[in-house]
Amino acid sequence: MLIVPEREIATLMTRAAAFDAVEQVFAAMAAGDAYNFPVVREAIGHEDALYGFKGGFDRAGLTLGLKAGGYWPDNLEKRGLINHQSTVFLFDPDTGQVRAMVGGNLLTALRTAAASSVSIKHLARPDARVIGMVGAGHQATFQLRAALEQRDFDKVIGWNLHPEMLPNIEAVATEAGLPFEAVELDGMAEADVIVTITSSFAATLMADHVGAGCHVACMGTDTKGKQEVEAALLARATVFTDEVAQSVSIGEAQHAVADGLIAQSDVHQLGAVINGTHAGRISDDEITLFDGTGVGLQDLAVAAAVVDLAVEQGIAIKVDF
Amino acid sequence: MLIVPEREIATLMTRAAAFDAVEQVFAAMAAGDAYNFPVVREAIGHEDALYGFKGGFDRAGLTLGLKAGGYWPDNLEKRGLINHQSTVFLFDPDTGQVRAMVGGNLLTALRTAAASSVSIKHLARPDARVIGMVGAGHQATFQLRAALEQRDFDKVIGWNLHPEMLPNIEAVATEAGLPFEAVELDGMAEADVIVTITSSFAATLMADHVGAGCHVACMGTDTKGKQEVEAALLARATVFTDEVAQSVSIGEAQHAVADGLIAQSDVHQLGAVINGTHAGRISDDEITLFDGTGVGLQDLAVAAAVVDLAVEQGIAIKVDF
Repeated sequence: MLIVPEREIATLMTRAAAFDAVEQVFAAMAAGDAYNFPVVREAIGHEDALYGFKGGFDRAGLTLGLKAGGYWPDNLEKRGLINHQSTVFLFDPDTGQVRAMVGGNLLTALRTAAASSVSIKHLARPDARVIGMVGAGHQATFQLRAALEQRDFDKVIGWNLHPEMLPNIEAVATEAGLPFEAVELDGMAEADVIVTITSSFAATLMADHVGAGCHVACMGTDTKGKQEVEAALLARATVFTDEVAQSVSIGEAQHAVADGLIAQSDVHQLGAVINGTHAGRISDDEITLFDGTGVGLQDLAVAAAVVDLAVEQGIAIKVDF
Repeated sequence: MLIVPEREIATLMTRAAAFDAVEQVFAAMAAGDAYNFPVVREAIGHEDALYGFKGGFDRAGLTLGLKAGGYWPDNLEKRGLINHQSTVFLFDPDTGQVRAMVGGNLLTALRTAAASSVSIKHLARPDARVIGMVGAGHQATFQLRAALEQRDFDKVIGWNLHPEMLPNIEAVATEAGLPFEAVELDGMAEADVIVTITSSFAATLMADHVGAGCHVACMGTDTKGKQEVEAALLARATVFTDEVAQSVSIGEAQHAVADGLIAQSDVHQLGAVINGTHAGRISDDEITLFDGTGVGLQDLAVAAAVVDLAVEQGIAIKVDF
């Protein structure tokens, strides 16, 4: 079996490879060729940690396995380790034998960024010029870098609850040669694309903060109770997601569905747009919204891609297991 | 992180170490210090395989992780590999980082055998002399070897649907210097301890096949619909299990509970007997029955034990992950 340690991921994995892997697996999910297993997520009563497993199987890509790990809130302060810790295990679907073990920390950031980037490719207006970021933490920098590759943007605007963090995303804009402007939330009306990436438990971005024709990618809500945007925005928008069942239960759509503003049948798979079985955006005035909840298959897809790259480049560690 | 390959398990792991690990984790479960996570089990629609994850956390032993793998029915015929394939992954509960990867195939056989052996230690009559085996497949040999260590048995009797397999267990009896006798099912009345280890979907051992004072360990039922013994036997017996929730849903007790012959509250944790919070057997005439359903914590416990042994003996492979 093959091992790709966490320290090798940064040099091996490219945003393009993550993008392709996530786009392909979203397409496979919508075609019924790939599915996610029930998620296990446990508060283990030790170090305040959340731990669990996200597994799945992609019959098209023949990728089987799981991401295991979770959130250890005191890792950084107590031990200088990052708080989110995860490892991906891939299995041979023909035999059930373990095939590879891959560091999952950076991959998780890359696959999450790839998901919003895939949504921008398929749903944002082709002439989008202004991108707005709601949230400016570490993950926001990954989101913005991936998003900037999808359209010919000429300005980045940003808002964060703690404005002192905005230089994180300003630096990414500068690196891309784009001007950056800090705005209030109502200033987001100028944006053609908005990415929200916060850990909020109440709506931050309201429906009237969003202009006609905007594409909004909501990437922060992955738990019951979390919320980034006003439920009324989902009622105004055409809503897409990675996985409908997660979107309406633990994703951004949970609130709009619970409030009766939209039905589960109003939430569409992004993969259907990729496959051409859903038209996606049909007018320039339409608001499109992607609810990125994060599925195990994304992790497996980027891990499988990185294993291929590691083998090609002779970096994978072989263990006779 | 540490790797203990499948090929090293046979020389590293002892029945005694497996016994101690399983006894300790059953005790921790009953004391509320260890718990199993929801089981994921998926028919993946490829190679007719069943694949999934059994995880858990033992706060007392600080063992966190999962067994991943499953059943590939054509492995042996198509590829010369065993059909049950599994791998155990242990995590550091203080940080969420992966700590060890351990071959899980032989360990699964050893931990299952250890479970019935623990039940015999704590529930069989001290003067048990005759042990009966219902089932004579590969796993039956592990069960019998482990069982023979718990009492001063002077005879092994056995039954199998396909009698041509009985030499499997006869060989174990001979190896232990004990006579072996093939019997019909009603001949099991002579046994002081009976271990059932079949993959049956209908009761094989009936209530009137079992003599007063016998201890019965039912080790084969781990799925809805499977059944080894008549439900009426559970009504006559004092019933113990590894995990009550599994016992009444996918274990041997599922049928007696569904038929209204016993209630969930009639099923006791074997760990409570180990801890002394349940008296266990209280008379020589009492029939005791252990429903061994198989829990993830058993796998984690024996894997943690084997990692310790591998480190002590310098056999663990270290990978800078």
